[in-house]
Amino acid sequence: MGAMDPRVVIVGGGFGGLYAARRLAAQGASVTVVDKQNYHLFQPLLYQVATAGLSPGDIASPIRYLLGAYPSVQVTLAEVERVELEAKRLHLKGGGTLSYDTLILAAGVRHSYFGKPEWEAFAPGLKTLDDALDLRRRVLMAFEAAELETDEAKRAAWLTFVVVGAGPTGVELAGAVCELARFTVAKEFRRFDPKKARVLLVEGGNRVLAAFDPSLSEHAKASLEALGVEVRLGQRVTDLSADGATVNGSFVPAKTILWAAGVEAPSLARTVGVPVDSAGRIRVDEHCQVPGRTDVFVIGDLASCAGPDGQPLPGLCPVAMQQGRYVADLIVARAKGRALPPFRYVDKGIMATVGRAAGIAQTKRLKVWGLLGWLAWLFVHIIFLIGFRNRLLVLIQWTWAWLTYGRSARLITGTEPPKLPAA
Amino acid sequence: MGAMDPRVVIVGGGFGGLYAARRLAAQGASVTVVDKQNYHLFQPLLYQVATAGLSPGDIASPIRYLLGAYPSVQVTLAEVERVELEAKRLHLKGGGTLSYDTLILAAGVRHSYFGKPEWEAFAPGLKTLDDALDLRRRVLMAFEAAELETDEAKRAAWLTFVVVGAGPTGVELAGAVCELARFTVAKEFRRFDPKKARVLLVEGGNRVLAAFDPSLSEHAKASLEALGVEVRLGQRVTDLSADGATVNGSFVPAKTILWAAGVEAPSLARTVGVPVDSAGRIRVDEHCQVPGRTDVFVIGDLASCAGPDGQPLPGLCPVAMQQGRYVADLIVARAKGRALPPFRYVDKGIMATVGRAAGIAQTKRLKVWGLLGWLAWLFVHIIFLIGFRNRLLVLIQWTWAWLTYGRSARLITGTEPPKLPAA
Repeated sequence: MGAMDPRVVIVGGGFGGLYAARRLAAQGASVTVVDKQNYHLFQPLLYQVATAGLSPGDIASPIRYLLGAYPSVQVTLAEVERVELEAKRLHLKGGGTLSYDTLILAAGVRHSYFGKPEWEAFAPGLKTLDDALDLRRRVLMAFEAAELETDEAKRAAWLTFVVVGAGPTGVELAGAVCELARFTVAKEFRRFDPKKARVLLVEGGNRVLAAFDPSLSEHAKASLEALGVEVRLGQRVTDLSADGATVNGSFVPAKTILWAAGVEAPSLARTVGVPVDSAGRIRVDEHCQVPGRTDVFVIGDLASCAGPDGQPLPGLCPVAMQQGRYVADLIVARAKGRALPPFRYVDKGIMATVGRAAGIAQTKRLKVWGLLGWLAWLFVHIIFLIGFRNRLLVLIQWTWAWLTYGRSARLITGTEPPKLPAA
Repeated sequence: MGAMDPRVVIVGGGFGGLYAARRLAAQGASVTVVDKQNYHLFQPLLYQVATAGLSPGDIASPIRYLLGAYPSVQVTLAEVERVELEAKRLHLKGGGTLSYDTLILAAGVRHSYFGKPEWEAFAPGLKTLDDALDLRRRVLMAFEAAELETDEAKRAAWLTFVVVGAGPTGVELAGAVCELARFTVAKEFRRFDPKKARVLLVEGGNRVLAAFDPSLSEHAKASLEALGVEVRLGQRVTDLSADGATVNGSFVPAKTILWAAGVEAPSLARTVGVPVDSAGRIRVDEHCQVPGRTDVFVIGDLASCAGPDGQPLPGLCPVAMQQGRYVADLIVARAKGRALPPFRYVDKGIMATVGRAAGIAQTKRLKVWGLLGWLAWLFVHIIFLIGFRNRLLVLIQWTWAWLTYGRSARLITGTEPPKLPAA
């Protein structure tokens, strides 16, 4: 297809959008990628930025850079507010519009607070680099505040971290915050012992990492507890404030609460005017398209797409990548008058890490945990980090951090005024 | 000296404060370092963060980490608002106080706008990591806005960058922005040619880098012009707005203006109630102390300290480091009843860089420029970057960037709402 051919507009430069764009561009299709951020983010390592292990530049690259080699691709920095299906037009924040011939929605999801949006101020979630820098500021500030605080009870609240939700993000955050306290800053404070910091991981379900085999959940829980995380299963957070969380009816004084408990589609999804699931994700058919519309595809976390067992596919990078490639191939095939069989997700397994030397991974045939699980996790994440440079840098940084327990990016930046006790 | 000995309080964790703290701590003195940031910053490379070449974590380390090995050192994250000389007490923002026996003021300087503080909103300066991230956002956003803009004149304004002041920071910024446009993003935009971006370097004096020998200024100017920077000497900025700068009476439409034209002491300096120079810097005697007070020292950029020729010493890292060490030795000597000769600055030379393969450096005996000047600059800056890890990482990043013209940290982060044209 040449530059004057029908234009494919892709909303979102995450894994789904990026893989679709590259595949389409490689075949010369005209593509516009619209994203409200200028960067593609390697989200599986975002918790490392939030806990000062990596810098934003290590896990993110400009979308323009990643697609710069394809002359038929345009990148537009804008937020899409509304989709007009019949007019085949996107409405952008600030007033502009963008017309498409074919639309791929790959805008991802945001964290959700189960109908309590006011909780976000007390318990930020982790989806963007700005989220991660906010979390990093809060976590590092808590230790600074504890050093300035003279009241013992208040200091204890600064040194209590509550992580809500024990999916991969919650588990990784809890483990990393615990390591930060016990190793990285262990010798840097004079008025308290950072090792006494408490990290609570609160989960409503009856095990951590519920997407995994129960035996691996047990291994992960044991690893978390060995690190010092207090794992609280079957417990619910019923209230949150700037001073703590109410967990199963009892108040836990804690100045830092991190949210990893749920996701929902951005409001954009509802503007399309097609059926969505309970989390607001757009339901798609077996071709990843909005039922009845051959010109609109939804991929990645934003799509509610049934897997082989009838259950929706999980919100994982491999799902988004495979859908991105599939949809690109389908668009090209159809332009040539051909058809493609339905999308089929090839499940290569799932993995998660717990601290600096433990992890779990499972495929259909294999389960690994402990050091081996962690090595598997490390290997796969480095291989998939987009761009040679990042991969090498991250590897060096990790090696260094692993040897020294150091965390290189412990910088409190941002314009938010720190709310510290009077010194 | 033991932990119960007189306490030295150091305000500022820059080069002066850090070197003083380490020297004092190595001799067991009780030291408290107070800084409003949690990090020590390698300021000579800050322009690299502002132009997306390095990440904040590459040039900054937590002060706690750098001083963590000394049990007699405390670090306090707080902003000092006022010094009460007679009561020997500091007043902190938020209400607390901190008493000292001996005080070392090393709080540095901020950029100054020659009595036009309202210019700061249009032309931010470069002193902190947050400043650098703000500049980075503005520079990267300008290219994004140019891609969205359809009006040619407005696009040209987005693609015009004015750097005010041709000292080291101004020269380095102008060179780096020019390289960013001509090489790094050269192939990433579709609606304009980034190579046509204009970078103006406006300087009121009659040469760039006036602290250097005139022949080196000429070399630097030629290098800048070879890169594509429009060097405007003997020209003054008389007005600034969100849309441009008035330079020598004529208006230059430019959406991005970077300020590198002057510095002044923070308001803290005036609260001490002792004589200051025209930039608000505290005048000190030959022992780096406030005249007549053996308990208050001022070092680094904040001090107005006469050099051997009677002129004030320049605001350079080596001056701050040498003063920091001197003052530490003096305090220890006096505690033992001994005296020290006056402070004497050992001038090892000065250097600056212009883009990716040119620089100038001079010592009393030697002048180098071009590639040799750049290599000298590179060598010294890597040697002095505090901490092995940073040094290695920065070297790798630079090597990579040098080979590819890449800039790894081209991320638009921060909560400031982007002001883009409607797409």
